Amino acid sequence: MSVLIEGGRIITAADDYVADVFIEDETITQIGVALDVAADRVIDASGKYVLPGCIDPHTHFDMPFGGTITADDFQSGQTSCAFGGTTCHIDFANQTRGKSFSSGIEDWHAKADGKAMIDYGFHIIVVDVDGGTLEDLATLPDQGVTSYKMLMAYKNVLLVDDQTLFRVMELARDTGALAMIHGENGEVIDLLVRRAVEQGNLDPSWHAKTRPAELEGEATNRAIQIAHVAGCPLYVVHVTCEESVDAIARARAKNWPVWGETCTQYLFVDDTYLDRPGFEGAKAVFSPPVRDKRNQPILWDAVRDDRLSAISTDHCSFRMSDQKTLGRDNFALIPNGAPGVEDRLLMIHHFGVNEGRISLNRMVELLSTNAAKLFGLYPRKGTIAPGSDADIVIFDPEKEHTISAKTHHSAADYNLYEGTTVTGAPEIVMLRGNVLVEDGELVASPGIGQFVKRARFGEELKPARAT
Amino acid sequence: MSVLIEGGRIITAADDYVADVFIEDETITQIGVALDVAADRVIDASGKYVLPGCIDPHTHFDMPFGGTITADDFQSGQTSCAFGGTTCHIDFANQTRGKSFSSGIEDWHAKADGKAMIDYGFHIIVVDVDGGTLEDLATLPDQGVTSYKMLMAYKNVLLVDDQTLFRVMELARDTGALAMIHGENGEVIDLLVRRAVEQGNLDPSWHAKTRPAELEGEATNRAIQIAHVAGCPLYVVHVTCEESVDAIARARAKNWPVWGETCTQYLFVDDTYLDRPGFEGAKAVFSPPVRDKRNQPILWDAVRDDRLSAISTDHCSFRMSDQKTLGRDNFALIPNGAPGVEDRLLMIHHFGVNEGRISLNRMVELLSTNAAKLFGLYPRKGTIAPGSDADIVIFDPEKEHTISAKTHHSAADYNLYEGTTVTGAPEIVMLRGNVLVEDGELVASPGIGQFVKRARFGEELKPARAT
Amino acid sequence: MSVLIEGGRIITAADDYVADVFIEDETITQIGVALDVAADRVIDASGKYVLPGCIDPHTHFDMPFGGTITADDFQSGQTSCAFGGTTCHIDFANQTRGKSFSSGIEDWHAKADGKAMIDYGFHIIVVDVDGGTLEDLATLPDQGVTSYKMLMAYKNVLLVDDQTLFRVMELARDTGALAMIHGENGEVIDLLVRRAVEQGNLDPSWHAKTRPAELEGEATNRAIQIAHVAGCPLYVVHVTCEESVDAIARARAKNWPVWGETCTQYLFVDDTYLDRPGFEGAKAVFSPPVRDKRNQPILWDAVRDDRLSAISTDHCSFRMSDQKTLGRDNFALIPNGAPGVEDRLLMIHHFGVNEGRISLNRMVELLSTNAAKLFGLYPRKGTIAPGSDADIVIFDPEKEHTISAKTHHSAADYNLYEGTTVTGAPEIVMLRGNVLVEDGELVASPGIGQFVKRARFGEELKPARAT
Amino acid sequence: MSVLIEGGRIITAADDYVADVFIEDETITQIGVALDVAADRVIDASGKYVLPGCIDPHTHFDMPFGGTITADDFQSGQTSCAFGGTTCHIDFANQTRGKSFSSGIEDWHAKADGKAMIDYGFHIIVVDVDGGTLEDLATLPDQGVTSYKMLMAYKNVLLVDDQTLFRVMELARDTGALAMIHGENGEVIDLLVRRAVEQGNLDPSWHAKTRPAELEGEATNRAIQIAHVAGCPLYVVHVTCEESVDAIARARAKNWPVWGETCTQYLFVDDTYLDRPGFEGAKAVFSPPVRDKRNQPILWDAVRDDRLSAISTDHCSFRMSDQKTLGRDNFALIPNGAPGVEDRLLMIHHFGVNEGRISLNRMVELLSTNAAKLFGLYPRKGTIAPGSDADIVIFDPEKEHTISAKTHHSAADYNLYEGTTVTGAPEIVMLRGNVLVEDGELVASPGIGQFVKRARFGEELKPARAT
Repeated sequence: MSVLIEGGRIITAADDYVADVFIEDETITQIGVALDVAADRVIDASGKYVLPGCIDPHTHFDMPFGGTITADDFQSGQTSCAFGGTTCHIDFANQTRGKSFSSGIEDWHAKADGKAMIDYGFHIIVVDVDGGTLEDLATLPDQGVTSYKMLMAYKNVLLVDDQTLFRVMELARDTGALAMIHGENGEVIDLLVRRAVEQGNLDPSWHAKTRPAELEGEATNRAIQIAHVAGCPLYVVHVTCEESVDAIARARAKNWPVWGETCTQYLFVDDTYLDRPGFEGAKAVFSPPVRDKRNQPILWDAVRDDRLSAISTDHCSFRMSDQKTLGRDNFALIPNGAPGVEDRLLMIHHFGVNEGRISLNRMVELLSTNAAKLFGLYPRKGTIAPGSDADIVIFDPEKEHTISAKTHHSAADYNLYEGTTVTGAPEIVMLRGNVLVEDGELVASPGIGQFVKRARFGEELKPARAT
Repeated sequence: MSVLIEGGRIITAADDYVADVFIEDETITQIGVALDVAADRVIDASGKYVLPGCIDPHTHFDMPFGGTITADDFQSGQTSCAFGGTTCHIDFANQTRGKSFSSGIEDWHAKADGKAMIDYGFHIIVVDVDGGTLEDLATLPDQGVTSYKMLMAYKNVLLVDDQTLFRVMELARDTGALAMIHGENGEVIDLLVRRAVEQGNLDPSWHAKTRPAELEGEATNRAIQIAHVAGCPLYVVHVTCEESVDAIARARAKNWPVWGETCTQYLFVDDTYLDRPGFEGAKAVFSPPVRDKRNQPILWDAVRDDRLSAISTDHCSFRMSDQKTLGRDNFALIPNGAPGVEDRLLMIHHFGVNEGRISLNRMVELLSTNAAKLFGLYPRKGTIAPGSDADIVIFDPEKEHTISAKTHHSAADYNLYEGTTVTGAPEIVMLRGNVLVEDGELVASPGIGQFVKRARFGEELKPARAT
Repeated sequence: MSVLIEGGRIITAADDYVADVFIEDETITQIGVALDVAADRVIDASGKYVLPGCIDPHTHFDMPFGGTITADDFQSGQTSCAFGGTTCHIDFANQTRGKSFSSGIEDWHAKADGKAMIDYGFHIIVVDVDGGTLEDLATLPDQGVTSYKMLMAYKNVLLVDDQTLFRVMELARDTGALAMIHGENGEVIDLLVRRAVEQGNLDPSWHAKTRPAELEGEATNRAIQIAHVAGCPLYVVHVTCEESVDAIARARAKNWPVWGETCTQYLFVDDTYLDRPGFEGAKAVFSPPVRDKRNQPILWDAVRDDRLSAISTDHCSFRMSDQKTLGRDNFALIPNGAPGVEDRLLMIHHFGVNEGRISLNRMVELLSTNAAKLFGLYPRKGTIAPGSDADIVIFDPEKEHTISAKTHHSAADYNLYEGTTVTGAPEIVMLRGNVLVEDGELVASPGIGQFVKRARFGEELKPARAT
Repeated sequence: MSVLIEGGRIITAADDYVADVFIEDETITQIGVALDVAADRVIDASGKYVLPGCIDPHTHFDMPFGGTITADDFQSGQTSCAFGGTTCHIDFANQTRGKSFSSGIEDWHAKADGKAMIDYGFHIIVVDVDGGTLEDLATLPDQGVTSYKMLMAYKNVLLVDDQTLFRVMELARDTGALAMIHGENGEVIDLLVRRAVEQGNLDPSWHAKTRPAELEGEATNRAIQIAHVAGCPLYVVHVTCEESVDAIARARAKNWPVWGETCTQYLFVDDTYLDRPGFEGAKAVFSPPVRDKRNQPILWDAVRDDRLSAISTDHCSFRMSDQKTLGRDNFALIPNGAPGVEDRLLMIHHFGVNEGRISLNRMVELLSTNAAKLFGLYPRKGTIAPGSDADIVIFDPEKEHTISAKTHHSAADYNLYEGTTVTGAPEIVMLRGNVLVEDGELVASPGIGQFVKRARFGEELKPARAT
């Protein structure tokens, strides 16, 4: 099966030019001026952007959490990804307390097997280094799991203490894994939440009030300093506020190997959402919480000037109808999370590129290339280049699209951006040359997606087929 | 008993003028031009500075620590203070784990009773809020103990966790106490120390190598953020490095009620001291450790421009002969601490004022006035003004003095500044009008010093005798 | 004539205590607890503040400017000062182009002689170093004129080029004068003003639009860098905006001898004032112009944390009735300036101290002590201490006062703060022990004020009568 | 003529992958995996880097300056470029005082015609907007000259005043040109130089002593602020010091359209070079001068993190034998400038990439892509992409090369890096598919280079042959 994409405007993290792209055996084999090749299919992309498939380094599919399981499993979640122009994601595989890390990865393989619509990798979430051993954890990079995530929040559930943080960071340094952290001071938050509940402060707005931005900035700074002492590279997930941006910026100014991501929602949803009447605010209950609106331009500035290096989704969907309601009487029981994989490219292109906040090149870098480089997928993925997987989004910059839960493909029954109309949307989404979505229709079947064994931090992932 | 000090150059935190000072009943009652009063004693201070008695907000006398007891009890320690121009100090009273805070204060009263050579107050060190109750802790300000100190270092000994930090800070906010912290990440340090010992890295230099500056900056920042959430004022003790200065500076730039002190030794002793041959390095083993020399100009800049607001001593003396030797084979067993109360004014005047790093006014502010204001002693102490206690140092700016353990009055058998010759030294030191030291001789007896019930944070301590 | 002020709360830049003040021969001779002295007059100051007389380092009285002469001469101007608690000011003596600097000083002496209600000094404004010679300029410090001001604005009128700036700064370094600058890029402003006028943009709002804040920040930075190369201390007058504050802060962080002042009006009046209907905006036409309101909290922060070290008035009054009207048809012809000496203490006390932006001590430092120290008046003036001139404001912190042109004592026919009611006002204002104002009445006569020969930069001005 | 480059490692500003490159008609027409095409020449690039030809945005060839003419004309200068891997440069065309800008461009065309070895464009240097008119200057972008340079240094020769700066910046905004400045305060420097000469300080070290870094930072900041008021984008040439980097960084942090370049020599040569015995220091006399060595790591950090966006050469060569000697008795008469086009890639690759200061991608961005994008050459030049000119350097990362005036191709008789041995050097350098240099031999003839009409700022330069 070969495909020729003609005359599109190819956008990479640095380049912007018009050329034809030829795909054979799932790989981009040629890019050229007026290519004279026979192809099984020819696509006219004139007037369109030809983008590398987006990569989402932060999702939670089929995850038990908060007394329920996320609404999206790998099939619905990845289908939603495909519609949103995302052709690869890295999901968080949870270690089960008391069990090995390897078995956590096995659990996650089982969830994805046979259902996958796009390519995927796994991060491991480290909960318990006594139950799982460091020796076991050290073997994961050989299995293509080259990132260790730790949470400084969710006391008694996922929180790890500073000694664990340090020990795992040292291991990351030695095994070539990238350490990742969720930075919030879970100790103090635990106390604030218990106190709020005791005092009868139970509505969703208390979710944010009990998790102040200072405690995110604090934990982010703490993780960075500990990582520096441990000598390991660090990636800070879902940065929401100036406090964390500043902590990361200080490290980066010293040329420390530290990077941060924010998520789509933090650029658009602020803490007044939680005050919406009824239980509506529960839709935006996730952690870290939505923040004061003044943080939004700060986050945009940070993603522009590389204080933050990626935009992910932290997609972790729960239905309002029967899941979020677990916390109807107590914000602390609302399952934390929201859907988003389908909306990221749409929102960032419209409000980022169209409104002049970032360039097209930077959009590609934030949504695809940097994640590929940091997480061991590059140059197999993350760019449009000969030898790379033909993960391609043909994007129509003129197409209007209105975001809605009625039309999205996540199993979530609401959308944070409900009713937002954007200009610019994917027309065709390809995974390794195979069309997943075209003209708004899914045209691929479960199982097409593959697990990707990622390279170690700082190493390249060789293309499947090289010159 | 009345005293007239004639013609001295009176230096306060802001002023610098020549006048006479008249003392009656332990109080400064008049300051004037050519005062025409009859006095029991007349002192000619022409050509001399008349300084407020120095206040040391950070000492440890008669404290059990590291398997021994500090070399100086209140009598020798306060005698050493008196010779160094310090007429008031605030000692740290330790709570005993499992016992009440009040009993900790009682213990400390017992140590000082009958021995005191200068005036003194107490901070309480909070070790255990389950053993001691918050209710008990709340009563201390009524007893004149208006500052709660917590240590983030010394795991399993003094370290408190973040929830305790927060709860005590909230209490401080409510009771009008000033929270104080020793900022070092004791969790990671504990791990680093254990590892160093396991690997046979046992000499004194490993004391600093296992306590990197990043972990001080981290903990300082953490305490500041938690205090901000708790809504309480915070004083950071013994700041040693740029990392902590920066954390404090960021808070102060936002006008948060945060202050920091450094100690004399961090301005002069660097980490190469620990490499000295034999066991010599043990003299400079205290925590936080001495740092890379590049921090010294940073600390001087910070005390000049009020990013740091006080210079204390953290006097905590151990003899080399039989105490420091507990750690001869293992740095982790060296009792942490060094003497210093006698040298502070000498060193800061010579290297600070004489060498142009700070002004005379700023010296007075750093060594006396700011501590008085922050710790509820002002205007009773900390300045030269009518109504204030007549705690006065008549200081000869031309007098040469060579610092040495042979001549100092601490029970410590070494001095960190051994052999340093300075220009400028106290000639007469008075406590409430009573001469303690004159011409290098002690002329007062134990018991002259009194416990001072300090005012709550932000409140004034009324002079004993007002207008 | 002797005066005893009993039981007031004495506030200096650092201290705050209750005591009696005794004045003899214009000098404070004693401060004490319950002074037992006979006095010609006894004033009960209990419940009142006893403040050092305010010093205004920036006024323009009896100055020809903009085709007219300021509304206030020394008599009305200084009377207005006295009512506002200001007992000493430093006026700008203009060099006349082509004439000597000394003759400029003589001109100003003539203006003040016989009219003075308060003490005063002069700065020289350097217009032309070819007309006046550097040799002449070098003699001024011997006459007690120890500050050289240059303007980077007002092209073809007062603006000096960078070579002149440098040459005068070198001279200042050598003669012990303090260099002062008005920082605005007059070259670009000249072009912007001419263009606005050509384009028919003539209303008062164009005064600010043609003088953007960037051009103030630019010139401020330029002067600072040139002063640093020249090796002279620098004082930046009337800072209005973040851009200039930042330039000064950068220099101060390097410990360069650079200071800045703002003026009362920039803390309260913003650029929307210029849009007021009719010709009302002309009242707030002065240079640098009023700025976007976002600068006001920045200026307050800067005066609090010593990025700015003084608050002056730049009092330069013109009547609306017949002077400001010169520019009714063209903003560029509106005489630049506004009254303010009478309102400074009232406004800064109320909005600064009462509203918690600065402490009482800092108010004294900003309005009196720092100007005294920087401009060679200290300790003769700027504090309450034995030996100092008895320039004293007995200030009632409870007294309400409504500011109005109807009641103020300037010859200006408007007041920028018209109708503002403040709590706290002077009750008695004394110059060298002589009451100038009491209970809202002027009780002194012209001629009571004296010229003060100021000390060189960094030197003390010895009290008239020493111990 | 077609060329196939097989198996090289293609490095762009963002990408790094192995592929074949096919060139037809001077253009890259295909990039692919194992391309199956017939080519006139096949080059095996396995193990080599395939880089976009370097672009030097800052050269002075055949320029009369300092009483002589630069040693290199376009032929020798561009030959030197070619050997150094530079295939396109932008030379500064000087306006002659009193003559039109267009005639300046014509002069420069005449210098290049028939001699060109590589492609080239021109910036115009604005000396005199009265001699040349703004109307004339406005026509230059139509001729492909889309950048206006002004010098704030060289009083009485090239210096323009702030009004001129502003007027030309406004024009740049309106015509789509990029404003460029040489930032040094020429007024104060003029005075310092005259004084040094008067005082008999005549050796080359005084070149740096009379041009302090503060005056570069000052002028840089001034130009940035004026450009901001004018609303035009600005490019600051040859940044040498922290002071200028900071000024640029402050602007960029606000997202202002400001960019800076440094030059190779500032990363390697410091001011001690000027102290070399004899007249040796004259080799490093150029403006701004070489600086204190502490600036070098600051410049490396800045080029890494995009506070500086390009590295140029400011190649402006004079022979030591008979040109630099004009200033043997007076540093002020030494022609300012040094050679460098041949050494840039060698030095930056070795000390930047090999030594870990920057990545390979960033090297390409700094030496080629960013100049192309900022100066209207992209995507015709500055990358390896289909449609782009086949300006390619096949670079052997293992090849050792020793830099020397004996072997370089500039007409200069010395080299600042004499004797430096680097690892990594060009093997083949191609201009539009034509080999210029191969195995150290020049294989092309004068006239092969072409003038490039550059696009306006922010616009793309369409490839010669599109898809």
